[in-house]
Amino acid sequence: MDEKLKELKDSDYDFPHKHLLGLAEYSKEDILYVLDQAKYFREILDRPVPKVPTLRDKTIVNLFYENSTRTRLSFELAQKRMGADVVNFSTGSSSVKKGETLKDTIRNISSMKIDMVVVRHESPGVPHFLTRCVDAAIINAGDGAHEHPTQALLDMFTMRTIYPDLTGKNIAIIGDIDHSRVVRSNIIGLLKLGADVTICGPKTMMPAYVHELGANVSHNLDETLSWCDIAMALRIQLERQEEGTELFPSIREYHQTFGITMKHLEKYPDFTIMHPGPVNRGVEMESEVADSDRSIILSQVTNGVAVRMAILYLLSGGTRV
Amino acid sequence: MDEKLKELKDSDYDFPHKHLLGLAEYSKEDILYVLDQAKYFREILDRPVPKVPTLRDKTIVNLFYENSTRTRLSFELAQKRMGADVVNFSTGSSSVKKGETLKDTIRNISSMKIDMVVVRHESPGVPHFLTRCVDAAIINAGDGAHEHPTQALLDMFTMRTIYPDLTGKNIAIIGDIDHSRVVRSNIIGLLKLGADVTICGPKTMMPAYVHELGANVSHNLDETLSWCDIAMALRIQLERQEEGTELFPSIREYHQTFGITMKHLEKYPDFTIMHPGPVNRGVEMESEVADSDRSIILSQVTNGVAVRMAILYLLSGGTRV
Amino acid sequence: MDEKLKELKDSDYDFPHKHLLGLAEYSKEDILYVLDQAKYFREILDRPVPKVPTLRDKTIVNLFYENSTRTRLSFELAQKRMGADVVNFSTGSSSVKKGETLKDTIRNISSMKIDMVVVRHESPGVPHFLTRCVDAAIINAGDGAHEHPTQALLDMFTMRTIYPDLTGKNIAIIGDIDHSRVVRSNIIGLLKLGADVTICGPKTMMPAYVHELGANVSHNLDETLSWCDIAMALRIQLERQEEGTELFPSIREYHQTFGITMKHLEKYPDFTIMHPGPVNRGVEMESEVADSDRSIILSQVTNGVAVRMAILYLLSGGTRV
Repeated sequence: MDEKLKELKDSDYDFPHKHLLGLAEYSKEDILYVLDQAKYFREILDRPVPKVPTLRDKTIVNLFYENSTRTRLSFELAQKRMGADVVNFSTGSSSVKKGETLKDTIRNISSMKIDMVVVRHESPGVPHFLTRCVDAAIINAGDGAHEHPTQALLDMFTMRTIYPDLTGKNIAIIGDIDHSRVVRSNIIGLLKLGADVTICGPKTMMPAYVHELGANVSHNLDETLSWCDIAMALRIQLERQEEGTELFPSIREYHQTFGITMKHLEKYPDFTIMHPGPVNRGVEMESEVADSDRSIILSQVTNGVAVRMAILYLLSGGTRV
Repeated sequence: MDEKLKELKDSDYDFPHKHLLGLAEYSKEDILYVLDQAKYFREILDRPVPKVPTLRDKTIVNLFYENSTRTRLSFELAQKRMGADVVNFSTGSSSVKKGETLKDTIRNISSMKIDMVVVRHESPGVPHFLTRCVDAAIINAGDGAHEHPTQALLDMFTMRTIYPDLTGKNIAIIGDIDHSRVVRSNIIGLLKLGADVTICGPKTMMPAYVHELGANVSHNLDETLSWCDIAMALRIQLERQEEGTELFPSIREYHQTFGITMKHLEKYPDFTIMHPGPVNRGVEMESEVADSDRSIILSQVTNGVAVRMAILYLLSGGTRV
Repeated sequence: MDEKLKELKDSDYDFPHKHLLGLAEYSKEDILYVLDQAKYFREILDRPVPKVPTLRDKTIVNLFYENSTRTRLSFELAQKRMGADVVNFSTGSSSVKKGETLKDTIRNISSMKIDMVVVRHESPGVPHFLTRCVDAAIINAGDGAHEHPTQALLDMFTMRTIYPDLTGKNIAIIGDIDHSRVVRSNIIGLLKLGADVTICGPKTMMPAYVHELGANVSHNLDETLSWCDIAMALRIQLERQEEGTELFPSIREYHQTFGITMKHLEKYPDFTIMHPGPVNRGVEMESEVADSDRSIILSQVTNGVAVRMAILYLLSGGTRV
């Protein structure tokens, strides 16, 4: 067995979770443990053969009720590199169309002796609901505007490659706070790790419960960028604009008020750029900003595979083998 | 090699089939042989590592011209747990849209050196047709309203977990007999195994050739439930109702006349509930009935993987190795 | 290690390519080298176990922006038989719908540590563009009406099973020249190998730059068939006819003028029939012609898997291991 993996297995920490539903249920120690384990899998990805067949005995279903490129791909790569049997299930080709209830779908799938289910669904709470229906480990890959915990974990992992200790670090999250499950999971996680978080965007994009989130609120981009160590811009749902439910007068105006520009990078030379992707170039930031050496957006993608490998490993009973 | 598998290979029975097109072509002995072999694979599914890589050298194409959740998933899991290379092909992403004929599609796929083809198609007889086009073993995963033999095999396997010998057992099949390929395969198989079969449903849901099927016919649910050892309810195609081609006045009226209720379970304490899924809760049966301890619906799903493993094994030349 | 594979690895020829964008970039020697290597993989396909796990360490993404049956299936089988980890990505289930640019999509995918990308796209030049975005090896599986190099390679491989040396051989390509990427790649490749090429079809189906292609042009089928050693008919896009952008008065008239018939086979007893598929039976040729012993259409399909295995092997660094 791989020496490093053996070391992980011998760790004293008793990881207490069977599922990953959201970061709300994970303690600071749990989060740090996942992020530390993920370092090992991140190293594996740089090996000539980026594989470690520790899930050879496991069957995983990816149950995606919403479109997704990178999240599904990232999970599937993580699973295949760990040797799991992977079956994909998406709404298009399923008897969901026949009116089968979610509960029956999951119980049927589970009856086929599935070990883990990765689920994305438009309704908040679906992953929690599934844990009450089946024995398999459930991983939330995004439930409505609620949580998207593996995204937040990969964001924090990536931040820690710049600032190994996030205590007291200033993290800004900029954009459409209201419709983002990424924000919620990140705020929850970052506050647990001791970071200061400011959310910045137009008032129309702030949730009603904004002050309950525990983050500072700003509507001034310059102020926010002068303060922060890391600025994570969120994707604007252009579809929403097109559908006539505009949250701001125009995309151009949004960019002028909340878009990060090369001038910002010059004016505030220290902050680092992140974005969960896909970037709308020219909206959330200038195209040059996304491609600049201040941006670690592509590292987020690479780290996402490693973080998901770590979660799959831990939830498959990795520490108890 | 696994001891039990070795035993199966040493069996004296010379399984005479290259394909599984329908149960019409299988003798009583063939059916019992498949069901007995499936027990071994069912045990494998309860092992910590539910895999047996006996199809490591085989390439299988799943050719689905109709939507399917559990059948496709069940086959794919069976194939992957046996180590086969699996390629999925469904109408959405294919040159079927380009007007390629079925014959050309299958001959092209076959030219890529495929060992087995699992096919679902809306037209009866497609699997038979394919056997005349290619060398690969063909498995019918449902052809129109004709046959769905692996479903009937898994139903009979599941019945035998309650009644190891089905001779003289009373099996009721309830619902839309006319549009069900499951019924036809089940009647054919169950009669071969010596069971008594009654089909029960409204007259509008009986096929014209109902008396040729060899089963008893009833339109009285109470009478049927008082008689049977096992009651298998069939899925009502709600889509059909919505499209205006109603076969009964209303879903509510169907449930009142042919839906199985908790009161039925109390009144007739001995019969066991089955359903090929997905259940329309509140239509074919009350939701509590589906979830009661009289229901073995989820066992059917689990057994389906085992039965399909057995068929894949036998048709891949399992006994001749 | 397989003896034959070892021999290939020890070959003196230093294959100079990292990508396969088109045959325009490949020299005569490169093409012959690929075709010679493919012979080895073609032999593997006839073995009881048609597998050679030389890509066990590689991850490949199939990125298909257009529908495809045989090309995608052929690549996927080649990849799986070589033991690669394979992830499929098609427009339907992706964030391409979210407006992500092609560049961002590919850079994101590439950040997940992908070794090779097989891409089909409606726009000419997309594969070339991708090589400037990422480190992975890029294989063109068809870009608009530009090139489809693996198809041309498998065509030439199949021709060489009849005529091992194509120098001076007469190859006719018949049909809708204008909308075919297959033609362009074939003309480029065949001329490099020293063959004589004639393209034959109605004037409305000839590209404006027809004389720049370096092939002879004919509008007379009989003349062409009397001359050629091999006649490759191209698929007529019937969809185009239906959409009202007719390129000829009727399908019937096309068949009468450019369709290959059994009478042609009798009259000219020497030429061999090819077609990239799927054949419109009764349009490009009579159904009996496609199925006659003069046709090697199905061999093309089988050889396609072998040729793709060879390309995957070479571009994965096969000769440099």
